[in-house]
Amino acid sequence: MNIDTFVFIMEIIGTIAFASAGAMVAVEKEMDLLGVCVLGMTTAVGGGMIRDLILGVNPPVMFQNPVYALVAIAFSMLVFIVAYYNHKLQESKLYVAYDRLMLVCDALGLAIFTVVGVNAAWNMEYETTTFLQIFVGVLTGVGGGVLRDVMAGNTPYIFVKHIYASASIIGAVVTIVLMNFFGELTGMIAGAVIVFVIRIFAAYFKWNLPRIRKD
Amino acid sequence: MNIDTFVFIMEIIGTIAFASAGAMVAVEKEMDLLGVCVLGMTTAVGGGMIRDLILGVNPPVMFQNPVYALVAIAFSMLVFIVAYYNHKLQESKLYVAYDRLMLVCDALGLAIFTVVGVNAAWNMEYETTTFLQIFVGVLTGVGGGVLRDVMAGNTPYIFVKHIYASASIIGAVVTIVLMNFFGELTGMIAGAVIVFVIRIFAAYFKWNLPRIRKD
Amino acid sequence: MNIDTFVFIMEIIGTIAFASAGAMVAVEKEMDLLGVCVLGMTTAVGGGMIRDLILGVNPPVMFQNPVYALVAIAFSMLVFIVAYYNHKLQESKLYVAYDRLMLVCDALGLAIFTVVGVNAAWNMEYETTTFLQIFVGVLTGVGGGVLRDVMAGNTPYIFVKHIYASASIIGAVVTIVLMNFFGELTGMIAGAVIVFVIRIFAAYFKWNLPRIRKD
Repeated sequence: MNIDTFVFIMEIIGTIAFASAGAMVAVEKEMDLLGVCVLGMTTAVGGGMIRDLILGVNPPVMFQNPVYALVAIAFSMLVFIVAYYNHKLQESKLYVAYDRLMLVCDALGLAIFTVVGVNAAWNMEYETTTFLQIFVGVLTGVGGGVLRDVMAGNTPYIFVKHIYASASIIGAVVTIVLMNFFGELTGMIAGAVIVFVIRIFAAYFKWNLPRIRKD
Repeated sequence: MNIDTFVFIMEIIGTIAFASAGAMVAVEKEMDLLGVCVLGMTTAVGGGMIRDLILGVNPPVMFQNPVYALVAIAFSMLVFIVAYYNHKLQESKLYVAYDRLMLVCDALGLAIFTVVGVNAAWNMEYETTTFLQIFVGVLTGVGGGVLRDVMAGNTPYIFVKHIYASASIIGAVVTIVLMNFFGELTGMIAGAVIVFVIRIFAAYFKWNLPRIRKD
Repeated sequence: MNIDTFVFIMEIIGTIAFASAGAMVAVEKEMDLLGVCVLGMTTAVGGGMIRDLILGVNPPVMFQNPVYALVAIAFSMLVFIVAYYNHKLQESKLYVAYDRLMLVCDALGLAIFTVVGVNAAWNMEYETTTFLQIFVGVLTGVGGGVLRDVMAGNTPYIFVKHIYASASIIGAVVTIVLMNFFGELTGMIAGAVIVFVIRIFAAYFKWNLPRIRKD
């Protein structure tokens, strides 16, 4: 497959996943329809916007090509509509499903945007260091979620969830190593799978990094 | 009138309106004199700074021309002084006036910065899409207020107030359509009036978009 | 001493100071090891990143040269380890020391990044106004701390602490005046000392700007 097409498909999947995650947080916060769309869109395009600002891509890609924002808005509305007809979401069995869906969407967005970010830095016309590629990849991956949580008034996921940024960092490193040896396609797929698997396993098995509790 | 002069006057009015709105929030939060100035200035120049970062105008206009920041600081101080001599603001009849003044200032800033943002994108030397123009316009309009609310620890207005970003979006679209047919001046004036009127009407008649309440 | 070497040493000291301050806030918030590193790093490199985005340095220096991030991570880990073996930090005599250490680290970072920011704007290849130099200096100084506090869910220091941004503004002005008369080295050292001394004195003597309390 053409690498550009592949990256585009990845980005659309990531956009859908993050838009849904953002919209779910907004619904939880009882925001109105437009608030849901704004938060969904911010989550979806926020990481890419930060990436482009850092790499000096002006104006950022998401502002030039409306497809990302439109897809994000469409899926945010979809989440709103589904939630609208499931008022008692939290009290029903659906709630567990909701919680899991949120986790999967967020992990998917994190995985895809990490490797897409690494790839964007890798393909800049000016020379980029491995360090920059990793850094930009992780920022692209976690950026949307941090914006979402700060705007919604929550403590960012990245600070409280089991193994979150670490999954992104490991995936970014793997992506770069494999891209060097086996090409971009293989590197990106493997990197994304690794981020996703680590994140889901960490949530499922409640893997935690050490933390200091006051008592 | 010269279009540049017109835009400059609009920007100064918007700066005054948003600086006052930001300063009022800071006073509410019992911040000190400098905190009031910082929040007033952030609200006033924040939207324009985000706009210039996205459009690739480095350094942003507000950092090159001190007039915006100085006007913002002057009016933030004015708000502080007025509030200082009206200690019991909240308990007096003035409070209602205060609440309305805040609404008008915020709506005015939203209206003006939306159309100024659209116009800035429209006038870039590189080609810009209609989508980019709308997006940048809305970001310029709502950006200052979002920064204000996040920094003050409030849930951003955009997520909780009746018809806020929607007013900005409609105004941006109207501005672009009318600029194409009747020139920049007409487009900007009409767009700004529409944002302002929709926002004020929405607040007055308590227009709301649907939202999902947990009960 | 070579001015570049001097600036580099200043930046490393500022990075260590701000990373430690950020890590301490994260430990207070009971974040895990990675959260501590992320917040420490954000505090340390955040101001410089904002500075470079505004000045149009793409990609920002901290993304090109890994040394800043690595130093920030190392010292964040150090803070974590020290705190880990002092579980009962808050209840012990150490707590007072902790509180003071936090103050000194934060003041040191504020002082150094203010003058480094001024100097960076001063040395741009395009012409910069005095206003821009002051503005960028202050933003570089306070930016990391604002990001830290917003991400940690605290009200930004800048709004609540005795004489914070004012110290940075005064220091920036002094730096520019002295750089014009006595060269960069003298200006930067004097400016940094002034920011640091004002900030520490303000905290010690509880200097306050006027503020309006509701009662």
